[in-house]
Amino acid sequence: MTVTTPAGFTAAAVPAGLKSAPEGGPAPLDVALVVNEGPTHDSATVFTANRCKANPILWSQEVVKDGVVRAVVLNSGGANCYTGADGFQTTHAVAEQVGSALGIGAIDVVVCSTGLIGLANPRQNLLDAVDACAAGLSADGGADAATAIMTTDSVSKQVVIEGAGWSIGGMAKGAGMLAPQLATMLVVLTTDAVVPADELDTALRAATRVSFDRLDSDGCMSTNDTVTVMASGASGITPTPEDFTAALTQACTDLAMQLLKDAEGADHEIAITVLNAASEDDAVEAARSVARSNLFKAAVFGKDPNWGRVLASLGTTAAAFDPADLDVAMNGVWVCRNSTPAEDPALVDLSAREVTVTIDLKSGSERATVWTNDLTHAYVHENSAYSS
Amino acid sequence: MTVTTPAGFTAAAVPAGLKSAPEGGPAPLDVALVVNEGPTHDSATVFTANRCKANPILWSQEVVKDGVVRAVVLNSGGANCYTGADGFQTTHAVAEQVGSALGIGAIDVVVCSTGLIGLANPRQNLLDAVDACAAGLSADGGADAATAIMTTDSVSKQVVIEGAGWSIGGMAKGAGMLAPQLATMLVVLTTDAVVPADELDTALRAATRVSFDRLDSDGCMSTNDTVTVMASGASGITPTPEDFTAALTQACTDLAMQLLKDAEGADHEIAITVLNAASEDDAVEAARSVARSNLFKAAVFGKDPNWGRVLASLGTTAAAFDPADLDVAMNGVWVCRNSTPAEDPALVDLSAREVTVTIDLKSGSERATVWTNDLTHAYVHENSAYSS
Repeated sequence: MTVTTPAGFTAAAVPAGLKSAPEGGPAPLDVALVVNEGPTHDSATVFTANRCKANPILWSQEVVKDGVVRAVVLNSGGANCYTGADGFQTTHAVAEQVGSALGIGAIDVVVCSTGLIGLANPRQNLLDAVDACAAGLSADGGADAATAIMTTDSVSKQVVIEGAGWSIGGMAKGAGMLAPQLATMLVVLTTDAVVPADELDTALRAATRVSFDRLDSDGCMSTNDTVTVMASGASGITPTPEDFTAALTQACTDLAMQLLKDAEGADHEIAITVLNAASEDDAVEAARSVARSNLFKAAVFGKDPNWGRVLASLGTTAAAFDPADLDVAMNGVWVCRNSTPAEDPALVDLSAREVTVTIDLKSGSERATVWTNDLTHAYVHENSAYSS
Repeated sequence: MTVTTPAGFTAAAVPAGLKSAPEGGPAPLDVALVVNEGPTHDSATVFTANRCKANPILWSQEVVKDGVVRAVVLNSGGANCYTGADGFQTTHAVAEQVGSALGIGAIDVVVCSTGLIGLANPRQNLLDAVDACAAGLSADGGADAATAIMTTDSVSKQVVIEGAGWSIGGMAKGAGMLAPQLATMLVVLTTDAVVPADELDTALRAATRVSFDRLDSDGCMSTNDTVTVMASGASGITPTPEDFTAALTQACTDLAMQLLKDAEGADHEIAITVLNAASEDDAVEAARSVARSNLFKAAVFGKDPNWGRVLASLGTTAAAFDPADLDVAMNGVWVCRNSTPAEDPALVDLSAREVTVTIDLKSGSERATVWTNDLTHAYVHENSAYSS
């Protein structure tokens, strides 16, 4: 049920002392290595759109250009972001160490890091950890790797989607879109299908567009987000692009929902669906505006079906709609029809974690869903108490 | 020290039963009337940019088109937003009532409302209150009017700026950019200077652009925001446009800072200044991105000088800058220089309410300041517990 389920992949994880140990407990796993043993080494990767990018992103952007990735090395406990030239050298040294340990080129090694911005990672710890990982690689190592990349995650996130004789495996970390440590969403996907790099790229962009890109826990964008997929071709099977894209989308959506449910401090998972928009972009913009309304998110925390805050958010967008003709439902109760009060908001029961908001723009036939969490005391607590 | 300080203005306020009385206490003031007794009746008004506008805005947009406003009637206790045709008729009836009580046209009466979206205001209560206000108008009524428009405000907000033989008075309500009740920023400004409507409009837009428009307590935009200025000409003095604009800007900035300091639940007032931007728009966009980062705002609440969250916010903007060459100071301590750690963040003392963040984009010579508050437990509490 993990990144090493598809044939042709090995993984390992070790403790490198980057994350502090719980009192009296063993040092936690914090460095992971995932290796594509081939025979093919096609890959595709998407990075954060944040212009302020961490050193591992600056490195990995060069790595992925030729569509070949043979290994991904990941660490928690330090983002290596805004740490200057020395921080970049640490990333580079880690990639070189992976390369020499595995007998491959450093330029085929993606590096991912997560943790606080502006703190240097201890380079020697990382280099030693790379050697230990390389020595311990196994087809059973996926679960350990998924554990090693956790920060404030309360559970590790893994997925397997089975195709006809091929499969996709995946792991993810992230507690909210951007966790207390500016902690980054990191995702590694693997497949033993035969998929050339350009098709992987198309499939990955299609899959992330409707999954991770529509997860908006707190509106903040990480400096380190990376989603990478590697194809080993070890199954010898070439699925149709449609079948592969569908399976990859399923894997990404499954992991995205695992991230949503583990968002730090959240009491509710909120799915905001916009119907009958003039365009998909309009639908996403309208849904995202609601997902980013602190007032609406605080109301959901308070179990208050405050649809006025939904309308106030929609009004800040450029999406096509008539402000006097909007319908809004919460958990299936149409509390607003034609921009006037309709069914009794008291009928909306917000005691369960899952909340749906449905907005009918009556301006076309496109739709989209954006997922978010509520704004809670625990969110404020976790995010105010982190680095001090 | 209020809207009736300039010559030519009267005001009154009464309780109309829209706001519930504190236990055992008298009914609070909740309807106010401010009248320009002339001799001139020039005016200018700016409204919320939210496309989802309340009924009083829909009415008042027509009123202000000819530059003549003779009275402003305001109520707290109900926003009259998304209440349908009946809600618009309530607004219209209130304006007509003011018109007949004062012997003026309803089309010269601006109406402002504040409160929960989707709830109808009791029309007869409002009409009776208008008559009571009209009967009680006085040049001493400004302070009562400022009290009547309070919702979650803990203090009333008033200002007077003295010119050479003329003055500007003002009152405002609002607890945060958008208060728990979607409660609206309402501002009434008065002057006894002689200022024609087109000059008033130019001055008001210049003043609000650098004051209210740069107050961003929680990123949410109200459906009811209104800022209106009326000139009575009663001083007989015509200031230069420069002098008048400067005084009006001073009045608006003073009221904006009063709103900032009374934002519900806030522990800190944060001034984010962007220096050396390629354009003023770039400076505002960059500063606003930080003002809207929940992670940054929660960190300030936790007294954590987390400059990584500042950089992560800047990276989401289109402002011109080199991500590898940014400087950031908090309370004057340059914690980040050239996008690398500089002075020790431990030197930043965030125990006082006032916090300054200074960002040097090194890409031009423009600058702007945006003001916000921190994200606190009290904010979540007040905004989750309101309508239920």
